[in-house]
Amino acid sequence: MRFEIQAECPVTGARAGVLHTPHGPVETPVFMPVGTQATVKGVLQRDLAEELGAQIILANTYHLFLRPGPELIRGLGGLHRFMAWDRAILTDSGGFQVFSLSDLRRIGEEGVLFRSHLNGDPHLFTPASTVDVQLTLGSDIMMALDECPPWPVDEAVAAEAMRRTVRWANTGYAHYLRRREETGSAQALFPIVQGSMFPSLRAECAARLGELDADGYAIGGLSVGEPRGTSLEIAAFTAALLPRDRPRYAMGVGMPEELPEYVARGVDMMDCVLPSRDARNGRLFTSEGRVIIKQARYRDDSGPPDPACDCYTCRTHSRAYLRHLFQAGEMLYSTLATIHNIKYYLDTMRRIRQSILSGDFASCMDAMRSVGLE
Amino acid sequence: MRFEIQAECPVTGARAGVLHTPHGPVETPVFMPVGTQATVKGVLQRDLAEELGAQIILANTYHLFLRPGPELIRGLGGLHRFMAWDRAILTDSGGFQVFSLSDLRRIGEEGVLFRSHLNGDPHLFTPASTVDVQLTLGSDIMMALDECPPWPVDEAVAAEAMRRTVRWANTGYAHYLRRREETGSAQALFPIVQGSMFPSLRAECAARLGELDADGYAIGGLSVGEPRGTSLEIAAFTAALLPRDRPRYAMGVGMPEELPEYVARGVDMMDCVLPSRDARNGRLFTSEGRVIIKQARYRDDSGPPDPACDCYTCRTHSRAYLRHLFQAGEMLYSTLATIHNIKYYLDTMRRIRQSILSGDFASCMDAMRSVGLE
Repeated sequence: MRFEIQAECPVTGARAGVLHTPHGPVETPVFMPVGTQATVKGVLQRDLAEELGAQIILANTYHLFLRPGPELIRGLGGLHRFMAWDRAILTDSGGFQVFSLSDLRRIGEEGVLFRSHLNGDPHLFTPASTVDVQLTLGSDIMMALDECPPWPVDEAVAAEAMRRTVRWANTGYAHYLRRREETGSAQALFPIVQGSMFPSLRAECAARLGELDADGYAIGGLSVGEPRGTSLEIAAFTAALLPRDRPRYAMGVGMPEELPEYVARGVDMMDCVLPSRDARNGRLFTSEGRVIIKQARYRDDSGPPDPACDCYTCRTHSRAYLRHLFQAGEMLYSTLATIHNIKYYLDTMRRIRQSILSGDFASCMDAMRSVGLE
Repeated sequence: MRFEIQAECPVTGARAGVLHTPHGPVETPVFMPVGTQATVKGVLQRDLAEELGAQIILANTYHLFLRPGPELIRGLGGLHRFMAWDRAILTDSGGFQVFSLSDLRRIGEEGVLFRSHLNGDPHLFTPASTVDVQLTLGSDIMMALDECPPWPVDEAVAAEAMRRTVRWANTGYAHYLRRREETGSAQALFPIVQGSMFPSLRAECAARLGELDADGYAIGGLSVGEPRGTSLEIAAFTAALLPRDRPRYAMGVGMPEELPEYVARGVDMMDCVLPSRDARNGRLFTSEGRVIIKQARYRDDSGPPDPACDCYTCRTHSRAYLRHLFQAGEMLYSTLATIHNIKYYLDTMRRIRQSILSGDFASCMDAMRSVGLE
């Protein structure tokens, strides 16, 4: 999977590039909308592509593994065809949801044993099996199984989790290379750097995963409760240790005002449920700050959700109409709000990318900082 | 409001026409999707117009009266602008929901006193006030306040409800004419024929309402639990008593296989929550009969919901994907299923209309009967 760097900011670590996937180009830096169960909640695939311009989305292996199951998806032509999405897809390894959703999990050297949150059935995810599941799904970018410690955590515990993550990455990567040899698959596998907020652990992990010469690398273990400044410091420290010519993916970040901050620190890819989840919960991100749509001030507000936005929702509907739909519990609210919030994130990234290409990233970042969301 | 009859079936009472509304033409016979709270649940207005080709939708006065309120909607430019729908809208009087949803209702000669199902606030709907509310909303077609008796019902009770309906229609229509004089409004008001399943009461009601010389007439009091054959008989009997040159609207019908039956009996307009509600509950109407999407047989069914349909859902997605979304509780399921079911209803009506225009209605009806839905 070829990653082409088109421009770099002379002041910060920001880069603009193109990641060439089997399902088309992904212009970076990029924000990936989350499509957990093979759907970005409430948004038609047509609107995701044509209206929002998404070039890549994320799907969750844990959920799809349990329901409808990877073999069923393979039988229907793979995940792209199953969900009728012909652009790029990144799948996570499933490990993160095992830790956050399932019961009775037990981590061993072999992998992680867990019970389905749907019906209690026991399952084992191993470094090789999660690669197999993702190969079966047919995603463009697969993630290695990792252990993401909570925060705060003792350095010894973080070191143990990091070293297990490295061993799992090695096992998984070797398995991936064998399978790639056998099948000629063009899917990429990204290892994940762990090490909590300890720079020395992050450095050790980055160095050891670097030996795999993977197509890209992820920075995991962020957004687990640590202060925002710490996340950014660790992202910057870790990104600088990763190969310059490979895409860097900061998992699970971030708030909209953090997007330029991560890019400035050398991050190329991000994902977060925030824009879609906040949309459903009544929070819109706009160029004028957060709009909490249930507030009485929007009752008769005939203006668009964001006057600076040209998404379908903002072109078509008023804050008053959105508030009415929200108060009435109408599902159209969620669809309209999600369309707007995702557009806001993707437009932000497109502006950032354009500014890197034109050499104005530093001033773009200053302008974005001055909006002062929250 | 001009109603132009373009063709009539020489065998049955079916007619094809165009109803010219202030918000564009409505080709009849027509099925009107229900947009209770100023939204057809889960469907973007753009898709309702461009993808489904709806020329008119229905909204519920009771719901909009309570939330967000007619004055708020007027302040935002009226219902069309509020919901960003520039085609025709029909509103009911609110009476039906008063009977089905609200607590502590009391019917008197003046009108109906009820408590809001949202917060218990008391309200009075009168023949004049429901006209005023609908004038404020700005719908193209307004409905007169009526009393719809349950079924079965004594003839004496049905007669009393029918005569009150006539008195209310007279009061409401006189008020409407005064207001129309004052404001130059182009909105139409349709009276509603009641009389339960008693032909003599229907005849008396139709004759007395006919004196109003209204722009159109509705047949109410159907689909209240009576046998299907009885509904069709009463619709046929009543339609024949209404002015030939005015549109006839059968309220709250029907099942998809009933559409040609009502048209054959001289009905021009219909509405029903069935296609959208059934969609959300997992029932799809197709050219091959009902598809109950949760059934295991659709688990790995790669075919479209309806091979004969060209809606977005059928062009894009498989039964297996829809089943996955339904089982996973994903809201995209409801949107996709509603798009299909409404398209199925509107396409059925468009086929019926085309067959009347081309003189083939009788054979079109035979073909539709042989599909044997259910």
